Amino acid sequence: MIIKVLGSAAGGGFPQWNCNCRNCASVRSGKPGFRARTQSSLAVSRDGRDWVLLNASPDLRQQINDTPELGSAIDGQHRNSPIKAAVLTNGDVDHIIGLINLREMQPFAVYGSDRVLATLDKNSVFNVLNREMVPRHELALDSPTMLAGPDGPLGLEIEAFAVPGKVALYLEDASQGDNFGSKEGDTIGLAVRDPAAGTEFFYIPGCAEVDPPLARRIENASLLFFDGTLFTDDEMLQAGLMPKTGKRMGHISVSGDDGSIGAMAPLGIGRKIYVHINNSNPILDENSDARRATETAGWEVGYDGMEVRL
Amino acid sequence: MIIKVLGSAAGGGFPQWNCNCRNCASVRSGKPGFRARTQSSLAVSRDGRDWVLLNASPDLRQQINDTPELGSAIDGQHRNSPIKAAVLTNGDVDHIIGLINLREMQPFAVYGSDRVLATLDKNSVFNVLNREMVPRHELALDSPTMLAGPDGPLGLEIEAFAVPGKVALYLEDASQGDNFGSKEGDTIGLAVRDPAAGTEFFYIPGCAEVDPPLARRIENASLLFFDGTLFTDDEMLQAGLMPKTGKRMGHISVSGDDGSIGAMAPLGIGRKIYVHINNSNPILDENSDARRATETAGWEVGYDGMEVRL
Repeated sequence: MIIKVLGSAAGGGFPQWNCNCRNCASVRSGKPGFRARTQSSLAVSRDGRDWVLLNASPDLRQQINDTPELGSAIDGQHRNSPIKAAVLTNGDVDHIIGLINLREMQPFAVYGSDRVLATLDKNSVFNVLNREMVPRHELALDSPTMLAGPDGPLGLEIEAFAVPGKVALYLEDASQGDNFGSKEGDTIGLAVRDPAAGTEFFYIPGCAEVDPPLARRIENASLLFFDGTLFTDDEMLQAGLMPKTGKRMGHISVSGDDGSIGAMAPLGIGRKIYVHINNSNPILDENSDARRATETAGWEVGYDGMEVRL
Repeated sequence: MIIKVLGSAAGGGFPQWNCNCRNCASVRSGKPGFRARTQSSLAVSRDGRDWVLLNASPDLRQQINDTPELGSAIDGQHRNSPIKAAVLTNGDVDHIIGLINLREMQPFAVYGSDRVLATLDKNSVFNVLNREMVPRHELALDSPTMLAGPDGPLGLEIEAFAVPGKVALYLEDASQGDNFGSKEGDTIGLAVRDPAAGTEFFYIPGCAEVDPPLARRIENASLLFFDGTLFTDDEMLQAGLMPKTGKRMGHISVSGDDGSIGAMAPLGIGRKIYVHINNSNPILDENSDARRATETAGWEVGYDGMEVRL
């Protein structure tokens, strides 16, 4: 499999339009050690010809322009695209709005949990995607699905599984108590497999906690892309950016006693890459102590355009 | 007034993700005479400090990153933005989806016709904009509105007026006959004024016809940004791109007996600039006969980053 990181930042991107924190001001002014990042998305292909998007961020048009593999082929029809399917891990606008960029009567397939598809159904803006050309398929949890595009099978298998998390911000219902009406399937992780080659990786861009079922599932994985939203749970409060902790937002932190570095350390995972990195996260500064600590712990910090082969 | 063209292309942008027409293939391969363009939007400011968006395209995050005037100020608060208001001319996704990029608890004001606001209300994804921070104001037709942002008046006056057009594609209702359920206010033009300076310009990114009321309104205007979607009404059919004419899409063509060059020629308009240019339009080729004819007729072809002062 060929995996491209299209966007390695969390919602808002890096820099974020209205943010003047140290990180955003540094990347905006071109300071060395800071690299701009678009919002969370991967692309995966078995053959380098047909591609599947894992989430569709608001920056998708820019990401396609920056990724020659995803452009319309010069030896193809007037209208053509190598993008044959999009798999959505939750209903956050950072993960679904990019679909709007894929209009223009081009056939491809959308896969998402029933909760995500219900959000698409309820928002008429997504009707710019003609359902006869862009069918929406429910991704059942804990059951492998062979992906297919308009021209047939794509040779890739996806297994979606619920991870600890939270419903999308704009769907929160405060009357539903501490979990704001979150249900199983609101936040999912994906196992992506090439059955012919016997390879597999995990993509978990949002996750509140590495609980025992999740730990068992990813133990000894060869490759993991994981939620790197925050370095410390209260970094946005400390920086005076927003009165919310990572826990409140449904994101585990990188460091600390219950952070992902510690939780993953004993799991024997081959290659661990942070994605969905918030602009407040000090690992975005390549010269920071946090970055050094993260890399010393065996993690890589994902960046736009990063390519991994399995 | 300072006016910046943030995006000069029609929906889909240039190149369009799935398009391999002569224009898109040329710009994608970096051929001289072709310039990439993002989707339709202007920004206007009276003082160069506070800015108003005229439409919010899906490319807004990239447009803000490419326009230093719109970035978060380095001498400001942790979170700040010079964008104080957004005025929406219709419910097309190319003109509203960019609002999603303006989340993150930053106050500004949204202005749109009742039909556009109803579309925002019905689509829960726009609830990422907290209404207490981002109030939505109805823009009455044919009546001047002084724009105000979160910190007070912006010194700019907007008058919205209905122009011949069509309801947004995803809201079309075939049972409503030839106009697909379009109503007055589905497509509006804007007169933008700086009353203190006594200056005014018109922004009409979508328009099906220059009828007598519109001609009277813009007669002798000093500056006009106008719908440059297509050069000829059937160019998308001729190129094998899509089975729709400009008339069917609600867009007047640039050339021809009932085109905008001819219709505007007798109106004594000072400066005429095409925006909302579709990727199929031959004026995007700087060396084309169509481009020469357009410029010879006294029109300019808008481009991203273009700045005009009045």
